[in-house]
Amino acid sequence: MSHLAPHELLTMLLALATLLGAARALGQVAMWLHQPAVLGEMLAGVLLGPTVLGHFAPQTFAALFPATGPNALALDVITNLSIVLYLLVAGLEVDLSTIWRQGLVALKVGIVSVLVPFLIGGAAAWAAPRLLGRTEGADPLIFTLFFGTAMAISALPVIIKTLFDLDMYRTDLGMVIVSAAVLNDLLGWTVFAIILGMLDAGGQRFSPVVTIALTLLFAGLVLTVGRWLNHRLLPYLQAYTASPSGVLSYAMTMALLGAALTEWIGIHAIFGSFLVGIAIGDSSHLRERTRFIIDQFVSWIFAPVFFASIGLRVNFVDHFHWPLVSSVFAIACVGKLLGATLGARWSGMPRRESWAIGFGMNARGAMEIILGLLALQAGVIDDRLFVAMVVTAIGTSALSGPAMLRVLRHRKPRRLLEAFSQRLFLRDLSARSRREAIHELVIAACQSAGLDADSIEFSAWEREQTAATGIGNGVALPHARVSGLGAPLVAVGLSEAGIDFDAPDGEPAHAIFLILTPREEPNAQLQLASELSRKFRDRRMLDLIVRATNYTEFLAVMKSAAPA
Amino acid sequence: MSHLAPHELLTMLLALATLLGAARALGQVAMWLHQPAVLGEMLAGVLLGPTVLGHFAPQTFAALFPATGPNALALDVITNLSIVLYLLVAGLEVDLSTIWRQGLVALKVGIVSVLVPFLIGGAAAWAAPRLLGRTEGADPLIFTLFFGTAMAISALPVIIKTLFDLDMYRTDLGMVIVSAAVLNDLLGWTVFAIILGMLDAGGQRFSPVVTIALTLLFAGLVLTVGRWLNHRLLPYLQAYTASPSGVLSYAMTMALLGAALTEWIGIHAIFGSFLVGIAIGDSSHLRERTRFIIDQFVSWIFAPVFFASIGLRVNFVDHFHWPLVSSVFAIACVGKLLGATLGARWSGMPRRESWAIGFGMNARGAMEIILGLLALQAGVIDDRLFVAMVVTAIGTSALSGPAMLRVLRHRKPRRLLEAFSQRLFLRDLSARSRREAIHELVIAACQSAGLDADSIEFSAWEREQTAATGIGNGVALPHARVSGLGAPLVAVGLSEAGIDFDAPDGEPAHAIFLILTPREEPNAQLQLASELSRKFRDRRMLDLIVRATNYTEFLAVMKSAAPA
Repeated sequence: MSHLAPHELLTMLLALATLLGAARALGQVAMWLHQPAVLGEMLAGVLLGPTVLGHFAPQTFAALFPATGPNALALDVITNLSIVLYLLVAGLEVDLSTIWRQGLVALKVGIVSVLVPFLIGGAAAWAAPRLLGRTEGADPLIFTLFFGTAMAISALPVIIKTLFDLDMYRTDLGMVIVSAAVLNDLLGWTVFAIILGMLDAGGQRFSPVVTIALTLLFAGLVLTVGRWLNHRLLPYLQAYTASPSGVLSYAMTMALLGAALTEWIGIHAIFGSFLVGIAIGDSSHLRERTRFIIDQFVSWIFAPVFFASIGLRVNFVDHFHWPLVSSVFAIACVGKLLGATLGARWSGMPRRESWAIGFGMNARGAMEIILGLLALQAGVIDDRLFVAMVVTAIGTSALSGPAMLRVLRHRKPRRLLEAFSQRLFLRDLSARSRREAIHELVIAACQSAGLDADSIEFSAWEREQTAATGIGNGVALPHARVSGLGAPLVAVGLSEAGIDFDAPDGEPAHAIFLILTPREEPNAQLQLASELSRKFRDRRMLDLIVRATNYTEFLAVMKSAAPA
Repeated sequence: MSHLAPHELLTMLLALATLLGAARALGQVAMWLHQPAVLGEMLAGVLLGPTVLGHFAPQTFAALFPATGPNALALDVITNLSIVLYLLVAGLEVDLSTIWRQGLVALKVGIVSVLVPFLIGGAAAWAAPRLLGRTEGADPLIFTLFFGTAMAISALPVIIKTLFDLDMYRTDLGMVIVSAAVLNDLLGWTVFAIILGMLDAGGQRFSPVVTIALTLLFAGLVLTVGRWLNHRLLPYLQAYTASPSGVLSYAMTMALLGAALTEWIGIHAIFGSFLVGIAIGDSSHLRERTRFIIDQFVSWIFAPVFFASIGLRVNFVDHFHWPLVSSVFAIACVGKLLGATLGARWSGMPRRESWAIGFGMNARGAMEIILGLLALQAGVIDDRLFVAMVVTAIGTSALSGPAMLRVLRHRKPRRLLEAFSQRLFLRDLSARSRREAIHELVIAACQSAGLDADSIEFSAWEREQTAATGIGNGVALPHARVSGLGAPLVAVGLSEAGIDFDAPDGEPAHAIFLILTPREEPNAQLQLASELSRKFRDRRMLDLIVRATNYTEFLAVMKSAAPA
């Protein structure tokens, strides 16, 4: 048992490759459909698990994912590691100083938005335990506490991502949502850690009371002394060890140690890595580059394998129970929306903003799924409730962004990459002058969108004559506002010879981006132009662009630019 | 056996944290002493393994690293995964087009530098098998082939890193070394894959001949069709999936698949991920950022755990056998130095360059250790030979850089970071003018180094008057050449108010770097100045620097800048 035999190594590699490949492929499909990636990742697991593969090809399923033996253990090792690292990343995104800055508002929203769903969820679980899927042997009090916690928890990573997508992360509203959600998560995970400590007290190292005391002591120490020590230590690590690998290894080692410590206390390992993540991520000395490496590797390698592996555990068709799914979904939404909105109204936020906060915090995402999985493993809930929790987690996350846009009457912000298209990409402009270049690009844009070329060209040229649009580094951004345009268009022309656009640095433009925006969206043009000029702040960007031989390569270069 | 019990999870987390933390800490100490990091990483394993911890605290050792049971298996899962990913990274560094460009020279050096050590090693193994540690039951032919291969293999990652450290990677000499080493590794790993295929043919899926044929077919397909397909696919992945996570997951999935396929053929998994790494790394469409994420995470998280885990397997004191260690070391050096040097002379390289190629290719690094470990697990060699191979691997790697500098009569290139020091950092310049700033910095430099301030100030100011040294973006680089200086010094002064250094962009300098270089090293000043101006090409760099409150924070910012 101490070594994998060659055929076991083969199975492990194949199982991991299949899980990772399928999870990322379907996760990407979900993103194309503007859904959370975790939806596709879990769907991959459902397809590879007992629900589909196990149903139609049981032998293949059993060979690839054996239920017992070394390969089952190998997968368990990897998923345990993944979840510990995922909570490290979730913790890194928590910014405690934000909470301080938001002060009383965050505190009010945070506490009410935990308390109300916790009470509503707890009451429902106490009143109708069997309907909500309490197992035979489970302790009623523990089940009630668990269900309340599950209804009260948020999913910080999903919330942050949604706010970024909507350009709302740096707004006051965004900061209230994030800081209230941080409070939610801290409270939620602490309560959950305590519930885990109460479970199976016979097999525990400490009595429940000692476990709770140690948990609070550990959390308190990590978030005060640990955070302070870490902030002191990071500059030394960066200055005197290899960079960024020194800090990278430090973060990983601390996360594993923190996880081991909470596991020793008798609560789950993930609470430890989550707290370590907060303590490290909170330091202004942590460089974006280091954070980026950890985030990319964990979020797109470890996490997809973990979420896909969830689908392997449960048959999602057999255990899909409509009444239960809709009850859990309803209780979750009502509790959180009510709690967050009341909290926001209490702190004096306007009505629409309060609802936006409610919908923003309603996203449960990965956190709910992890919570459910641990409860399932601990025997507190049954497969049916687990499935209902997974559906609730994904449903509330998918609903969050669109609902916020709706109540705020916002538009989705315009993204540069969505304004490009194959037909608006001219690899070799024949134009030699500004006038000709604008003409050529306007013709291409109007052919593809069926617009009136003459009036657009007139307006772009008039604008160009007022002030030339060469921004330097070989780039020009002529533009025009167009009536009746549904969404912004950016036509791209490359010119080997270069065209004089009267740039401040005197260099001719080799990449010309004609920006056409709807007249009704006065901000769209500025958004697109500033995104473009940020990308071309580095001269090397142009060198890569002019080497693109087709639209796909052009798009690849535009996307791979470092986020400015 | 299918799930880790809580106490097993605790042990796993603790074991991993200990291995990773100790390996990175000692790896960093090794780097401070200008030794390869792998030396420290393996030393951590020796300390935590049977050699030290197991000797002095056998119970702690057995609790943390049990020899059997789920935790032994868990560690085996992680080390297997680590080695597969490490070979992916090694493959990514191979640039096949380099070999084509070096053409005949690379081919001659590459083949002779494999053949000579292979023959010498093979002959020694055939003539004195028991002295060299062949096990009782091992097949003489297989042992001979293995020993020859072990003597013939290079360590591409170590070689590339050494050449980078010496500023020789982009030179003709560097390219010959790298391309010959690539050929070495390709030949070496193919032969080794075949040896593994010959081993234990009874338990194998295919006969040795079929295994060899499949290996060559697989290698040929991956390096031609696979490479071409990959080059086509990458722009699509970059353009239409999340970036860089799409390519990241693709590379990892393919590495696992390739590893599974070679494991299925009956040779080791690492050959598959190595080939996949070559096919992916060879594409010019693979972005540096993606490569960087994979490299950082694998090289500094997975690899250290793997190398430390090697120390857990063997007692390095008990199995250290002087005659064997020195014989293996001697055979390895003689074979490789002779082969590479002869090959280089044959292709018409001058004598000193030929020796430099020999020493450059002599580094065995991690590859030799991995080869030895696999042979140890397969029962071809005993613990004593394994220890001798590890010592040889580390010894030849440590020797490589210094020996190349010696035969080429080069100096180690001057590094900016080594020229800073605490005493040469002036947080707040009181100077208001160029003249005063230079005076203040010269005084600081001369106090610390005991130089003649007057003549240095005269020479720096004379230089400054000829052409002002403000380079824009708020930075100025005054300089002077100094007789009798042992190594370059850079004195740093920060000025809140800013000092006019007549920069092209008209902005006052907030960071002034006074560069003092030995008169005998005419290139040093240019090297340091260009490294500084690359770092400050991005305006944000200055914002970070002026926020540094002490020398450590300053150094941390200077180090964490993106490599330009």
